[in-house]
Amino acid sequence: MTLIRTDELRARAAGPIASFDPASTPGYRGDKASAADDLAAVGDELSSLQEMLFANGRSGDDRSVLLVLQGMDTAGKGGIVRHVGGLLDPQGVSVTGFGKPTDEELAHDFLWRIRNALPKPGRIGVFDRSHYEDVLAVRVHSLAPESVWRPRFEQINNFEAELADSGVTIVKCLLTVSKAEQRSRLAERLDRPDKYWKYNPGDIDARAFWDDYLVAYQDVLDLTDTDVAPWHLIPADRKWFARLSVARLLLEALRSLDLSWPPADFDVAAERARLAALE
Amino acid sequence: MTLIRTDELRARAAGPIASFDPASTPGYRGDKASAADDLAAVGDELSSLQEMLFANGRSGDDRSVLLVLQGMDTAGKGGIVRHVGGLLDPQGVSVTGFGKPTDEELAHDFLWRIRNALPKPGRIGVFDRSHYEDVLAVRVHSLAPESVWRPRFEQINNFEAELADSGVTIVKCLLTVSKAEQRSRLAERLDRPDKYWKYNPGDIDARAFWDDYLVAYQDVLDLTDTDVAPWHLIPADRKWFARLSVARLLLEALRSLDLSWPPADFDVAAERARLAALE
Repeated sequence: MTLIRTDELRARAAGPIASFDPASTPGYRGDKASAADDLAAVGDELSSLQEMLFANGRSGDDRSVLLVLQGMDTAGKGGIVRHVGGLLDPQGVSVTGFGKPTDEELAHDFLWRIRNALPKPGRIGVFDRSHYEDVLAVRVHSLAPESVWRPRFEQINNFEAELADSGVTIVKCLLTVSKAEQRSRLAERLDRPDKYWKYNPGDIDARAFWDDYLVAYQDVLDLTDTDVAPWHLIPADRKWFARLSVARLLLEALRSLDLSWPPADFDVAAERARLAALE
Repeated sequence: MTLIRTDELRARAAGPIASFDPASTPGYRGDKASAADDLAAVGDELSSLQEMLFANGRSGDDRSVLLVLQGMDTAGKGGIVRHVGGLLDPQGVSVTGFGKPTDEELAHDFLWRIRNALPKPGRIGVFDRSHYEDVLAVRVHSLAPESVWRPRFEQINNFEAELADSGVTIVKCLLTVSKAEQRSRLAERLDRPDKYWKYNPGDIDARAFWDDYLVAYQDVLDLTDTDVAPWHLIPADRKWFARLSVARLLLEALRSLDLSWPPADFDVAAERARLAALE
C-alpha cells in the first residue's frame, strides 16, 4: 500500500482552517489511480477488523467506534457514507444523519438525539453531521444566543470524554471544500435532474455565511480537539483523497482496539460430541 | 448478464419443502464464476435504483422495501446481509436482527418490535429473522400454546397487507440448507476459533427438531404466501447462488417501483441566479 501518514491529517498539525488547502493531499504520495487500489486494500482489512469488533460485541465487549463527519455543504459527507461505509458489513454499521432538529428533539437537550443514535457494542456508528451543528449552524445563523451555544464546547468535551470512558473510540473528520469547488458542485446539482434531490436552497444561504462558518469551525478545532476525540482536517476537493483518508482513519481506530477473536463461551469438545451424536 | 429466472424461486412453484433440493440452482444456467460477475452487475443497478428510491423518500414519497430473511441456523442469513446488503449505500439501509425477545418485547404484541424496525420512506429494511420466528421457533419449541401461535398466520397476513397498502414492497426469502451442509457448517464453527462467535449451543437443539421445523416452515409457506408478500424458497447450500438470487429479487422489487428522479421542489433558474450572484 502506498504510504499514507494520517498524523498529517490531524487538525492540530494543519494550521488555521482559513489558509488550509482543500485540494492538497497531505501525507499521501499516490494519485487517484493508486487511491482506488489503496481504498480496496484498506477495505479488506477494515472489513476483517469490523467482523472481529462485531464478534466481540456479541461476547460482552462494550466497545464501539464512532465516526463523526462534519463539513460545508457539498463537502462530500454523503459520498463518504456511501464509499467508506459501503466497505463495511451493514449488519455492524449504523448511519445517522442529523438534519434540522424536530420539535421533539428541540424539546430536549442538544445531546439527547445524539445519545439516542450512539452505536451499540461492537458496532461502528457514522454520524452525517452531529452535535457540532449546535455550535456551527446554530451559531452562524443565530438560532440561539451565545449564552446558549458558548457553553456547549465544554459540554461537548465532557460528553466525548464520557463516551471514550465507556468504550467508544471517536474519530472526528472535518471535510473541507474550497469555495470554487463548492460553486462547481452546487452548479452541478442545479444542472442535473438526477442531482436536484441533493440541492437545498439553504445551501446558498449557508454559502453567503462562508467566512462566519470558518470562524465557527476554527473555534470547534481550537476548543474541542482533545486526546480522546481528536479532529482531523480532511481536504475534500479531491473526493478520492477524502474517501481514502477517512477509510484509513477508521482503519487506524479499529487497529488501535487491538482486537482478537473472542474465546468460546461454551465447551467446544462437548458441543462437537453433541453434533456427532445427532443424525 | 446470465439469465436468472426468479419466478422459479417462488415458493409456490417449488413443491413441498421436505423434498426441495438446497443444492439446486433453479432458473440459473451459470456457475460460481459467472455468479460473481452477475452479482456485481446486479449490484450496480441495485445501487442506482436505491439512490433513486432514497431521493424520492426525501421528496415525500412514502415507499420503502423490506427484505425478510428466514432460514435454519447456518443457512447463510448473515452472509446475505453482508454480501447483498453490502452492495447498497448504508445511508439507505437498516438491518435488524431479531433474536430471542427481550422482556420489554415480550410485554408487547409479537408485531410490536417488528413495527418499530420498519424501514423509513426511501429506505431498504433487512430483517435477519422476523415475525415468522413467532410461528416457527415459538411453535417448534412450544414457547406458546397453539391457541396463541395458530392465529398469528392470519395476523401476519393482515399485517403484511397493511404494510403493502402503506407502500412497503415486501420480499420474503426462506433460505434452505441441507442437513448434511448444516452439519458441515456447524462443525466448521466448532473447529475454527474465528467462527466460535457464530456458534450457539441452541443451534444443536434446533437441529434435533429438524423435521418439526420443516412442518412449521411448510405451514408458513402454505398460509402466508400472498400476492403482496410472496415467499421465495432459496436453495442455500451454494452460498454464491443464494446471494445472487436474493440480490436479484431485491433488484426486481426496486424495478417494480418504476422510479424516476423526483422533480426539483425549488425554482431551478432562480437558484442558478442566486448562485451566480454570490461570490
